[in-house]
Amino acid sequence: MKKWEVVEGNLASPRGFRGAAVAARIKKTHGELDLALLVSDAPAATAAGVFTTNLVAAAPVLVSRQNLAESRGRCRALLVNAGNANACTGRQGLQAARESTRAVAKLLNLTPTQVLVASTGVIGVPLNLSLVTSQLPELVARLSIENASAVARAIMTTDTFPKSCVLRSEVGGKPVYLAGIAKGSGMIHPRMATMLSFLTTDALVGPRTLQNLLRAAVDVSFNCITVDGDTSTNDTVLAWASGVAGAGVRPGNASWAWFLEGLTELCRNLARMIARDGEGATKLILVEVEGARKPSDAERVARAIANSPLVKTAVGGSDPNWGRILCAAGYSGAVFDPNKVDIRVNDLLLCRDGVDAGFDEAAARKELDRKEVVLRLDLHQGSATAHIWTCDLTHGYITINASYRT
Amino acid sequence: MKKWEVVEGNLASPRGFRGAAVAARIKKTHGELDLALLVSDAPAATAAGVFTTNLVAAAPVLVSRQNLAESRGRCRALLVNAGNANACTGRQGLQAARESTRAVAKLLNLTPTQVLVASTGVIGVPLNLSLVTSQLPELVARLSIENASAVARAIMTTDTFPKSCVLRSEVGGKPVYLAGIAKGSGMIHPRMATMLSFLTTDALVGPRTLQNLLRAAVDVSFNCITVDGDTSTNDTVLAWASGVAGAGVRPGNASWAWFLEGLTELCRNLARMIARDGEGATKLILVEVEGARKPSDAERVARAIANSPLVKTAVGGSDPNWGRILCAAGYSGAVFDPNKVDIRVNDLLLCRDGVDAGFDEAAARKELDRKEVVLRLDLHQGSATAHIWTCDLTHGYITINASYRT
Repeated sequence: MKKWEVVEGNLASPRGFRGAAVAARIKKTHGELDLALLVSDAPAATAAGVFTTNLVAAAPVLVSRQNLAESRGRCRALLVNAGNANACTGRQGLQAARESTRAVAKLLNLTPTQVLVASTGVIGVPLNLSLVTSQLPELVARLSIENASAVARAIMTTDTFPKSCVLRSEVGGKPVYLAGIAKGSGMIHPRMATMLSFLTTDALVGPRTLQNLLRAAVDVSFNCITVDGDTSTNDTVLAWASGVAGAGVRPGNASWAWFLEGLTELCRNLARMIARDGEGATKLILVEVEGARKPSDAERVARAIANSPLVKTAVGGSDPNWGRILCAAGYSGAVFDPNKVDIRVNDLLLCRDGVDAGFDEAAARKELDRKEVVLRLDLHQGSATAHIWTCDLTHGYITINASYRT
Repeated sequence: MKKWEVVEGNLASPRGFRGAAVAARIKKTHGELDLALLVSDAPAATAAGVFTTNLVAAAPVLVSRQNLAESRGRCRALLVNAGNANACTGRQGLQAARESTRAVAKLLNLTPTQVLVASTGVIGVPLNLSLVTSQLPELVARLSIENASAVARAIMTTDTFPKSCVLRSEVGGKPVYLAGIAKGSGMIHPRMATMLSFLTTDALVGPRTLQNLLRAAVDVSFNCITVDGDTSTNDTVLAWASGVAGAGVRPGNASWAWFLEGLTELCRNLARMIARDGEGATKLILVEVEGARKPSDAERVARAIANSPLVKTAVGGSDPNWGRILCAAGYSGAVFDPNKVDIRVNDLLLCRDGVDAGFDEAAARKELDRKEVVLRLDLHQGSATAHIWTCDLTHGYITINASYRT
């Protein structure tokens, strides 16, 4: 087994997949791609999913969760739209989601439970089903390996760039692929939660194994990013394995660790892209906490800092305001001695033993001017660590969200 | 006992108090008031305090907490500065806080434990003690009833207006006063937490009683506001009772309820001013939750909504995006049926039974254009209620906090 490496490609680089996207006028802007279809042509393909923990789950989340369970992970198609989240839409919304799975199933000769659906966009506005169904024949006609590239663009809302990543490895001299796309970029918050991401592979992975691997990878990637602390109603990560490459992945086998490594790297790459493209963001921030007494303390501190609007605006303004970082750690609920804390931006020490380290102001600003900023805390209490990705908070976030709906 | 009514006045309207403020150059802007002294001249005066829950407590918080305990609530003076929080300043900061209590005590002929200190401003920068001590003789010389008006202005940082409130009642035909000042306006978050507020009364209240009453009033006022979810290192509410008016307040007595009513009204008025003046805020938002199964559910929902950047930016932009409100309720951790929720802005119904109520868009915008906006949720699950005050999130917040320190 070779090491996974990033290569060019799309969701159909793993063999056994086709995709397509069309402009169905669900988005307000005329002519923008907003409806996409992804199909696995391998009859034995498996699927897995992780969904929002929000009590107010959108209709497509409810339907996809149910279909994954009823088909026992044998789903073969995904219909996804942007521009309307089909959330808080009641019975009518559920009906629209179910109706669209039936329409897709009919065209692809599948059962409705083999079709998954996902939506992103404005909440509380009924989804106009006819916009979807009228485009389905065209979508199916366009399905191809090349057209799968359009899916990443069709799921964008306030994202400023499409997010996609393809990894390649080899087993017994034969190539195996992992591919994924994602969209952010507001309402980004850990605990599944957060966003849409769709992953494909041509490795051979049973549905139960795929589900376990997906959850493990999501926990250390998508669940480690936050933009604004808002957990969306629609967050969904779905994965498909076509099995066409034949590389079998089984628990308790070397293939398990190999595949998990690739899947984790894929999810982390996509997660970082989401954090970097947070609404209005100009910088990617990695909060790294070490020296905590226990992992939960490390995580609390990292999350409090990553969610602090005061820290995030200070980073946006390149203001080395380490006091706000220590303050956020202080209210996180973690137990530590404030007089032992060291704080660094990248490798520059700002605070030693809880007080000003006497750093050079210009040098600190220079570090904060980078596009990727690492905020490092050493609590000096133990050996537990945690990390969270986030972004700076800027005028752009306000502009986008003050009138998103209208 | 008459009903409490709002009247003109200052912290020295209750008899037995004097105050003064000077410009000590602790704030960056030349000539701005930034150092204030409040003194109770009644030898039997009592004091009480509630402080931040942040593990990283500022030096003045540590010193004031200790002095209140050691003097058994017999503190007679407060020295407060704005422009420097004296937080994250280590041993040097503690020494500066203690030194200033000694200097004040000497000038006023008190013991150092009878002097309380409070600071607000930038974190992590050593407080220049000589700026403080050199101004103390002048401050003491200026102490008067009239000059007490200047204290509210001297404690401002990014506040856009001084916050002050005076209440008057009568006992046996004789007047009794309650007065208070407060400052915000970033790092505002419940759970004591939040801000500085100083309260005075000429009622006769024992130190233990005053402490209990203060905590009760703070719980339903200052602990019910949030601006950005950041709990500061310096939050302090202090109260003094001079006893000069003679109206005795004792537990298990009609005077208890009467005094608590006034104290609560005073704290609520100041708390609302803080929320209204949140950094960059243009609107005061009251989140009212009713029909929850239990009080903790109601509070979770109210806090999640009040802390949601997406909800707060939508209100700022007068966008009736009720889906974000329901979404925040959904991730709050409270248990309820999303299909039974009604959401109103002021009295206009936006969402009924979890879906769009078919409201008039222009009418909804008009409601959201008001300076005071009530977001009302009825969960229809029970009879528990909760409310939280907050403000909208705007460009102003970003501008203020991107370069606060420098």
